[in-house]
Amino acid sequence: MIIEIEKESTDTVRQVGDLVRSMHCRPDILHGDLFTVIAVEGDATRIDMDYVLTFPGVVRAWRISSPYKTIARRVIGDNNQKVERKRIAIAVRGKDGLDRVFRDSRPVFIAGPCAVESYDQTARIADGLAVIADRLGCRDRMMLRGGAFKPRTRAWDFRGLGWEAMDILDRVRDNTGFPYCTEVMAVSQAEEVARRADMIQIGTRNYQNFDLLEAVGQTRRPVLYKRGVSAELEEWLSAAEYIALQGNKNILLCERGVKSTVAGDYNRSHIDLDVIPAIHSRTILPVIIDPSHSSGRSDLVPYQFCAASVYGANGMLVEVIADDTDRKTIQCDARQAVRLSVFEKMVRFQIGIESSPIRFEE
Amino acid sequence: MIIEIEKESTDTVRQVGDLVRSMHCRPDILHGDLFTVIAVEGDATRIDMDYVLTFPGVVRAWRISSPYKTIARRVIGDNNQKVERKRIAIAVRGKDGLDRVFRDSRPVFIAGPCAVESYDQTARIADGLAVIADRLGCRDRMMLRGGAFKPRTRAWDFRGLGWEAMDILDRVRDNTGFPYCTEVMAVSQAEEVARRADMIQIGTRNYQNFDLLEAVGQTRRPVLYKRGVSAELEEWLSAAEYIALQGNKNILLCERGVKSTVAGDYNRSHIDLDVIPAIHSRTILPVIIDPSHSSGRSDLVPYQFCAASVYGANGMLVEVIADDTDRKTIQCDARQAVRLSVFEKMVRFQIGIESSPIRFEE
Amino acid sequence: MIIEIEKESTDTVRQVGDLVRSMHCRPDILHGDLFTVIAVEGDATRIDMDYVLTFPGVVRAWRISSPYKTIARRVIGDNNQKVERKRIAIAVRGKDGLDRVFRDSRPVFIAGPCAVESYDQTARIADGLAVIADRLGCRDRMMLRGGAFKPRTRAWDFRGLGWEAMDILDRVRDNTGFPYCTEVMAVSQAEEVARRADMIQIGTRNYQNFDLLEAVGQTRRPVLYKRGVSAELEEWLSAAEYIALQGNKNILLCERGVKSTVAGDYNRSHIDLDVIPAIHSRTILPVIIDPSHSSGRSDLVPYQFCAASVYGANGMLVEVIADDTDRKTIQCDARQAVRLSVFEKMVRFQIGIESSPIRFEE
Amino acid sequence: MIIEIEKESTDTVRQVGDLVRSMHCRPDILHGDLFTVIAVEGDATRIDMDYVLTFPGVVRAWRISSPYKTIARRVIGDNNQKVERKRIAIAVRGKDGLDRVFRDSRPVFIAGPCAVESYDQTARIADGLAVIADRLGCRDRMMLRGGAFKPRTRAWDFRGLGWEAMDILDRVRDNTGFPYCTEVMAVSQAEEVARRADMIQIGTRNYQNFDLLEAVGQTRRPVLYKRGVSAELEEWLSAAEYIALQGNKNILLCERGVKSTVAGDYNRSHIDLDVIPAIHSRTILPVIIDPSHSSGRSDLVPYQFCAASVYGANGMLVEVIADDTDRKTIQCDARQAVRLSVFEKMVRFQIGIESSPIRFEE
Repeated sequence: MIIEIEKESTDTVRQVGDLVRSMHCRPDILHGDLFTVIAVEGDATRIDMDYVLTFPGVVRAWRISSPYKTIARRVIGDNNQKVERKRIAIAVRGKDGLDRVFRDSRPVFIAGPCAVESYDQTARIADGLAVIADRLGCRDRMMLRGGAFKPRTRAWDFRGLGWEAMDILDRVRDNTGFPYCTEVMAVSQAEEVARRADMIQIGTRNYQNFDLLEAVGQTRRPVLYKRGVSAELEEWLSAAEYIALQGNKNILLCERGVKSTVAGDYNRSHIDLDVIPAIHSRTILPVIIDPSHSSGRSDLVPYQFCAASVYGANGMLVEVIADDTDRKTIQCDARQAVRLSVFEKMVRFQIGIESSPIRFEE
Repeated sequence: MIIEIEKESTDTVRQVGDLVRSMHCRPDILHGDLFTVIAVEGDATRIDMDYVLTFPGVVRAWRISSPYKTIARRVIGDNNQKVERKRIAIAVRGKDGLDRVFRDSRPVFIAGPCAVESYDQTARIADGLAVIADRLGCRDRMMLRGGAFKPRTRAWDFRGLGWEAMDILDRVRDNTGFPYCTEVMAVSQAEEVARRADMIQIGTRNYQNFDLLEAVGQTRRPVLYKRGVSAELEEWLSAAEYIALQGNKNILLCERGVKSTVAGDYNRSHIDLDVIPAIHSRTILPVIIDPSHSSGRSDLVPYQFCAASVYGANGMLVEVIADDTDRKTIQCDARQAVRLSVFEKMVRFQIGIESSPIRFEE
Repeated sequence: MIIEIEKESTDTVRQVGDLVRSMHCRPDILHGDLFTVIAVEGDATRIDMDYVLTFPGVVRAWRISSPYKTIARRVIGDNNQKVERKRIAIAVRGKDGLDRVFRDSRPVFIAGPCAVESYDQTARIADGLAVIADRLGCRDRMMLRGGAFKPRTRAWDFRGLGWEAMDILDRVRDNTGFPYCTEVMAVSQAEEVARRADMIQIGTRNYQNFDLLEAVGQTRRPVLYKRGVSAELEEWLSAAEYIALQGNKNILLCERGVKSTVAGDYNRSHIDLDVIPAIHSRTILPVIIDPSHSSGRSDLVPYQFCAASVYGANGMLVEVIADDTDRKTIQCDARQAVRLSVFEKMVRFQIGIESSPIRFEE
Repeated sequence: MIIEIEKESTDTVRQVGDLVRSMHCRPDILHGDLFTVIAVEGDATRIDMDYVLTFPGVVRAWRISSPYKTIARRVIGDNNQKVERKRIAIAVRGKDGLDRVFRDSRPVFIAGPCAVESYDQTARIADGLAVIADRLGCRDRMMLRGGAFKPRTRAWDFRGLGWEAMDILDRVRDNTGFPYCTEVMAVSQAEEVARRADMIQIGTRNYQNFDLLEAVGQTRRPVLYKRGVSAELEEWLSAAEYIALQGNKNILLCERGVKSTVAGDYNRSHIDLDVIPAIHSRTILPVIIDPSHSSGRSDLVPYQFCAASVYGANGMLVEVIADDTDRKTIQCDARQAVRLSVFEKMVRFQIGIESSPIRFEE
């Protein structure tokens, strides 16, 4: 912990020093031009930062330990040495016996309709994905997505077919062998959805719904966990810790665009690709992107998809429609779904990139 | 609904025109320099805007009807005339038999600790509030707040005493006569909290937790509903509609600061006072502000409190501590709570302002 | 200076330590869980922070000295003691022999048209202001504003009458006795405008036009210096230092609203009133607000004006139009100007507030 | 022009209709649920939008013509037909006789030091670039950049060598044949810099310094024009129009990252890659990106560079240092410069991408 104190607040400097010592830590005191800084050596977690901030003259205080220890990449081991942990490899097995593994340099494609609207609609898309997967030899990298329960900004918009959609997804899984991911919106749904789906999604609006985070943490299903629309990285990772603390570390972080003062009618939000290497260096978790919701426009999706490949994303979550689908039959976010033919081009591009030996590290 | 179409997309113009007519509406077509605009006359709610957006050449489309009809100030009446509805007056009755009414020009003060940490702590604050209320003759404008269940960004921070805190709040209410408001974080708590508390708070992190919004909407308790940290006004009001659609219109909107690219160490977030008159002109709901969480600093709280008075806020939600409390005994947001003596000055200022006859309308 | 280094980068810790000592400073080294922190004692300005950041393992580094020493409130005196300087009192003398002084608790009102469009238009407004000033006994707190050179987002919008407008302003000053403020947009105009106007405005788009800042710094005229639309406080004050370093400390900071992710059609930008006490505590400069440009709507101007009074602003810059003016005759920002009758109410409110003895400090 | 009016303001509807007709345009009037909309047919540029906004009951008004006609991709031709113009191809000829052409699918690399600090430093980098260019056969796609006049947020930071740096750049150009780009900060420098440099840069802080924009517009040199840190696309393009209206359309737009509420210590700002296709569809201008300033970190530069390739950027502006340079000898932004060896990898990747036949259009 580092504590900045105004120079003239000598009483505070002395009192905070005493406080630090009373917690069996050691204060290193530095006298600057305008501020005095106290650096706390020892187990600073014992010290209440809010309390420290109430002393007169204290300007700032912050911790230098990780706020998300369970998922952090670097931790302190038994012998008080720093340990660099390996990235976890989330594996999702399909009925076809293949594991979809989210790990470096071989991203997994999670594709399907925004909302499951009928068996026919979902099956046509899944069949199309199977054709692509077989043609490109990447069946072990393809998963299905489809919304059963849909959060909608406006209360009277279409909210999904619910359990009926789950039945459809189960059937399509049986027919194609693809595992599927679907969103859970309420604690009351969590156990049942976790029992049936292969991966559970937490949507952007629920990113700090701690009750729901703990509920999915108590299942053992992999969780596709989306960033809040204005979540700072620290906030997001700190919230992910809620899931991990329940014993479930199979967390797949998903960037989906953030609010921006400059986002205009050319994009819906601002995708933050830089977060990909940042997450890789800070945590043991894999990270994917959702170009469909971040862009809100089907013409931008391929750009974001391919750029994410370059950034080393561990997967992409893409809304697709069948080539022969008229967008008018879709009740949800029709504008951002890409056709299967476009999706195939994107996947081809990705596979080409990854065969490249380029490495940017100095 | 207004639809902008690129000028050369004449096929689209014709097809959208046909679509509009097929829905028994009338298209008014305008030929601009670069765009053709179709203005839809009639009940445009029958037209699927997502579908319209999928036509080639359609640039934008938007509705000109309200997205939150249940709480909107102006609606269409039976005879197809616009009706201007009155602002609702939420009344919360205390054990002292007095109604706290949120209405224009007489704001209600909701004050108390951030978290209920003990009976003694809570009672001392409530007793102090009672002294102030009696001294200033504003007992019917004073309510108690206190957190039993606390959402925390970090999973291991103090999360409140839970039901034990509710017991304390019940006791303090019996002793002082003040009604109280407390936050509900989970659907499983909603019914019980609604049965006991006089007002239920939905916190900023749950602003789009639609499951929880509907749960409190099914109770009949007044709901203090906070804005999300990056919620646009339309998004916030559209989410409030989730509560209202369950039959509960006793919604007290609460502005608590938004994220900003320029907020620095001098304030935690950016309070949006302009939203107060905007809400008054758009909805029938009262609106209050929370200067404690928006500023994050006790020295800023009085400024924001008094500025909100000028703006016509219907109430203020303020964290206070007893004058003889050492901030170190507080586990939650100690930095932003003001002392009772400061709170009294703020209330005095407010009472002075409101007696002023100033009116700004031209 | 504080330097955070990854724990395992022991070489870097040693090298940075050597570097610090080579600059005749002393490194205090703290070993944290994950990071090592070096706190530099002595004159850290000799150390190149960019250089420090290039060492492998250095995570962050920052200075704890003020980046705007010339205008800072607290500085280091000769005897190495911290000195608290007094706020400067900018005085602008009118032809009527009265000084308009920007100092605490007695704000100055700078009012007039957005753009000077004719002698008649400007004189009618100035005459109206004179009537108000005399009626309320605040002539020594009233100044005139009016744009001669207008920056416009779009190149073909009306850009002001230029020097012809200066002639009009000179005439109106002669007739009413009010000093006036006008914007300068180009270095080539600076000297002449400074010779004639009583106060020079730097607009928001030129907030980091360092060339222009230095040009007005070389004059001795008071400078009304607006914040950039997304300027952080530190950036703004650091840029103000460009003016001050040329020898001109008569800088009147002006908050005019910042960009926000949530600003909607109910306000043009987001006014940051919290910056007022922040500037007062950090610098010796007075600060005013511009509710006209920040809100963009005449109906919001009185709210922001009066809220700024509560916050202790040293002045307000307001666009007004004559009561009998039709907005159609105005070529520039007609929507945000208030009528003289509304302006008078605002000033009355302000005078009432300031006679109140309220003080918020604990 | 489209004008939204509150339904009950029938007088306003009539008056605005009269106004529109008086300007020889035709009003199409649409009666919605809550609003009446008037769509103006004809040459709406004659109508003063500010005036329209002052009528009581007018909610919004906006134009549907382009605000940046000179650089727009689609314009109205003589016969009143929409014309789709071709993207301009800016060509910069080096002393080696080769043209660097900014056009689709073959980006130009503009590389060099942030600031020119000595002949030796600049020559070593330029020589390294020449080696790479010859090795990869892309000499006609390589240009030099280097700062002579440096804008700095803080007044006492290093501000560049000025004209001495221009002499160095001239010498390096003579030796290597590479054309160079350098920033101009003041109107007084514009003519001389334009005479000597091959391309003039307008920096992000001067994006709305209209005086300077017009000065470079009066030269005929290509202008590398950076986006403001919070400029919306419309604002940026409208400001570019200031340059174009002076007769100089050789404008190379440069995205360099925007302010964000979530940008943290993992990136300096938020790069907006989506702006690349948006500019291509709206204007005739080429667009490049500056990954060095947008990221502020050398480890992120390759990611942003390669992602921009995927997006179809027409060039990249990159700060490089020689492989054997110690970052400590650099006075300006050392942290964000990449070594020549890393730069070469990035260029190799780009060349590989562009040989790929992928096209994303449906």
